[in-house]
Amino acid sequence: MNKLLLLTLAGGLLLRPGYAQQTEKLDVAMLEKIKDEGLNRSKVMETAFYLTDVTGPRLANSEGLQRANAWTKQQLISWGLVNANVEPWGTFGRGWDIDKSYVAMTAPYYHAMIGAPKAWTPSTTGPVKKQVVVVKAATEADLDAYKGRLRDKIVLTEVATPPKTSFEPDARRYTDAELQKLTEAPSAAPASAADAERLAARRAQATLRAKMADFFLSEGAVAVLSSRGGSEGTFFTSNGAPYAPDAKPVLPEMEMAPEDQLRLIRLAEAGIPVEIELETRTRFQTQDLQGYNVVAEIPGTDRKLKSEVVMLGGHLDSWHAASGATDNAAGCAIMMEAVRILKAAGVQPRRTIRIALWGEEEQGLHGSRNYVKNHFADLATMQLLPDHAKLAAYFNLDNGAGKIRGIYTQGNEAVMPIFSQWLKPLAEMGATTVTKRNTGGTDHLSFDAVGLPGFQFIQDPLDYGTRTHHTNMDTYERLPPNDLKQAAVVVATFVYNAAMRDQKLPRKPLPTASKAQ
Amino acid sequence: MNKLLLLTLAGGLLLRPGYAQQTEKLDVAMLEKIKDEGLNRSKVMETAFYLTDVTGPRLANSEGLQRANAWTKQQLISWGLVNANVEPWGTFGRGWDIDKSYVAMTAPYYHAMIGAPKAWTPSTTGPVKKQVVVVKAATEADLDAYKGRLRDKIVLTEVATPPKTSFEPDARRYTDAELQKLTEAPSAAPASAADAERLAARRAQATLRAKMADFFLSEGAVAVLSSRGGSEGTFFTSNGAPYAPDAKPVLPEMEMAPEDQLRLIRLAEAGIPVEIELETRTRFQTQDLQGYNVVAEIPGTDRKLKSEVVMLGGHLDSWHAASGATDNAAGCAIMMEAVRILKAAGVQPRRTIRIALWGEEEQGLHGSRNYVKNHFADLATMQLLPDHAKLAAYFNLDNGAGKIRGIYTQGNEAVMPIFSQWLKPLAEMGATTVTKRNTGGTDHLSFDAVGLPGFQFIQDPLDYGTRTHHTNMDTYERLPPNDLKQAAVVVATFVYNAAMRDQKLPRKPLPTASKAQ
Repeated sequence: MNKLLLLTLAGGLLLRPGYAQQTEKLDVAMLEKIKDEGLNRSKVMETAFYLTDVTGPRLANSEGLQRANAWTKQQLISWGLVNANVEPWGTFGRGWDIDKSYVAMTAPYYHAMIGAPKAWTPSTTGPVKKQVVVVKAATEADLDAYKGRLRDKIVLTEVATPPKTSFEPDARRYTDAELQKLTEAPSAAPASAADAERLAARRAQATLRAKMADFFLSEGAVAVLSSRGGSEGTFFTSNGAPYAPDAKPVLPEMEMAPEDQLRLIRLAEAGIPVEIELETRTRFQTQDLQGYNVVAEIPGTDRKLKSEVVMLGGHLDSWHAASGATDNAAGCAIMMEAVRILKAAGVQPRRTIRIALWGEEEQGLHGSRNYVKNHFADLATMQLLPDHAKLAAYFNLDNGAGKIRGIYTQGNEAVMPIFSQWLKPLAEMGATTVTKRNTGGTDHLSFDAVGLPGFQFIQDPLDYGTRTHHTNMDTYERLPPNDLKQAAVVVATFVYNAAMRDQKLPRKPLPTASKAQ
Repeated sequence: MNKLLLLTLAGGLLLRPGYAQQTEKLDVAMLEKIKDEGLNRSKVMETAFYLTDVTGPRLANSEGLQRANAWTKQQLISWGLVNANVEPWGTFGRGWDIDKSYVAMTAPYYHAMIGAPKAWTPSTTGPVKKQVVVVKAATEADLDAYKGRLRDKIVLTEVATPPKTSFEPDARRYTDAELQKLTEAPSAAPASAADAERLAARRAQATLRAKMADFFLSEGAVAVLSSRGGSEGTFFTSNGAPYAPDAKPVLPEMEMAPEDQLRLIRLAEAGIPVEIELETRTRFQTQDLQGYNVVAEIPGTDRKLKSEVVMLGGHLDSWHAASGATDNAAGCAIMMEAVRILKAAGVQPRRTIRIALWGEEEQGLHGSRNYVKNHFADLATMQLLPDHAKLAAYFNLDNGAGKIRGIYTQGNEAVMPIFSQWLKPLAEMGATTVTKRNTGGTDHLSFDAVGLPGFQFIQDPLDYGTRTHHTNMDTYERLPPNDLKQAAVVVATFVYNAAMRDQKLPRKPLPTASKAQ
């Protein structure tokens, strides 16, 4: 279709012996067109604005996620994509939205505090004004000391990680040395006794938390204020109750800025009576318990290859205390921008390109796992569906808003020399690194688990770990436009190359049902 | 009284020719005792806890400042200080406290926002729920475009400095090179045309803001939301109306986290209807318009010198959106700890030591300026009171919570070799630097202005400029205990040396009335 240039690339450092150097045909003219569209006529920040500010928080099965589903489908159609669908993936659980959230200390003096209801926690009975009790428990037995002391009180639990004065920057980019290190095998760290211990400790902690929740409820406390951590107005959010429709009742609970929680605790422990005024109004939705993914396509044009699919995606759901800008409106906006660029550049892909914006990732990759189950393979049995053979590749983005520095191959050595060649024209934009390493925590795992070639890009960390990931400050401000533009060009390039290549991308050996989990 | 050791110190680098090397008699045994008490039996964090968490915000003439006045007086008495007094300095203006502060976006979806009423702004008429209008005005004429459009609306004004991804640490310490640079003359920067321009621009801005406030009120707007800056949940606070009892009325106004303000502005500018729910309840107090300073003494014991006074102080008032931990509970806690240490160490000072905790500094150094006027000299006429001759020195602390690295001498060259020798035994704690330079912005200026030897210490900047100074996050967490302990030891040492020295500290030439301003 377009001018093709044969690029022979060295990339020798990254290649393992045994994989013969292949030569990738790259459509240089089209790749330049992609770059030009993505850098000079970008719409990625406009898309990000709609996903964050306009849509708002997008908790699993919330109204915000429904708005996002509807808007993204419509937007993809408006760019000329077809077969757009808000596709149910199965049963998720209850929807939950916040209608009111207010918390202040009213004695010893007035101080409006920063916090948010934990996801899926119930409303308070209107505004309540109550004294506090600090509960410190390392074991269930420690709760005995609080028997009979919690009735009509607001419980304060401890702050896991108190804020410290920070002498390190919030945001950073990968250095060349760090990227180089990523290409080396990770330092041998087999699952150790320490790992097992940590896991056991985490489970024990979760069990204790559940016991505490039951205890607070049965003792007649009114609400709980807790804080996992954060600093200077930033705090981390999570769920405070299961989303299952038949979940056990819990108390209203707010997750607080640690500064506010610690002030309350210090005062109460000094014996100074503390009074809290609190009102949360949350709303459960049980009419539609299904979860959804948004999908849309640029159809393939090659008679033989158009039944094959190159997928790209990110998760559309977020946590609820901010607008989920870096987790993961950024990934979705970049993926949407990538297909917009491809349409604007007038690509005629040989294979079909399909974008998927996943639901309910934050609760366990539900959207992508079930999409894979519905379309490609049952992880439990490794029963393959016919489309399993048709997927050329899946590309995922979900590590914040930093520009793309390379790609994780999840141990797929055969794909490494291919990606190395694809990255050559993108090196000037900072994307250079192919690593054999695995990365986890997001939706490419759903594909990888059933032997499909699913990949996640390497992104500059920026302030993802310190300020944005699952916090109340994951907002539009956290999205650097140049990083998002670069990422969209890189993704569009990879997707285009995968759609044009003679062969689908190489796969790792198929896992056996017993290996899969 | 105690073992005296003659220390001859070089410090030559810092000495100007013409000032003969003096030899300071240092009471090494007592200085060791001070260090031991301050480092090993410190109460500075307990004091800081009372000044921040227990007392709360301490805005000029607020209930919080009244609580702080009462508590600090009592605390100083309990440590054995005498002549403790909450001493009125003259008329300040209205007291103002917050009883309720709530702001949320209720359309296009619910989002509880972070903000605080601007100081001295009135209450809303109960909870109000209104649409917003963004007002952008560079000149008064620009307001014409909004005539007739603000009735019953909440006005959004622009964010002066939008947040950016930060690749610099929030907190830092001075490097040796920076401290060395401080000892050199500042790069020649005479009052320039650019300075005059900046000043004029600031004045024009203030005039415009006042015009805007009048306009919003006369156009029938309901309230104003504004934001000066900050990031990630931290925002800067200020006053939104004068504290004079006869001040012109203004609208209720909240200062917002920039992320929240910018979200509202972006939505409104995209044509999406935004609704705000807002309730502020503020309370004015006009019964007592006076301002106060807290003073207390360790009496001198030398028959000839006890009528002379060494003063130390910091301002007790703060802004209202946090507990004013670094600005300036830290300075007050350190000064209080310094006198506690001196009492615990059993000093018998030759001169009287007097601590002063100033009121109303944030509104223009009112407490210290008027104390100086009432006790030492009238700045306007340079009429001196008898006590002007009796002040040996005034030491101030008000640059956050960082440890002391040295001292500014405000151009007092004669005092430099003395301070250099005093710092020698403190060098191991990081306090080394004597600079001829001026530093401004706080209460030592009130003394310096009338020819009294008033000094402010050099402190490590930490996160004072980025996170704490005048923000909603100036809380107890921002106080590193080891920094406060060190600072208390340094201050106690300086105060003790000044109280024991044969001579009062050298002074600069007396300013003439025309020079003073």
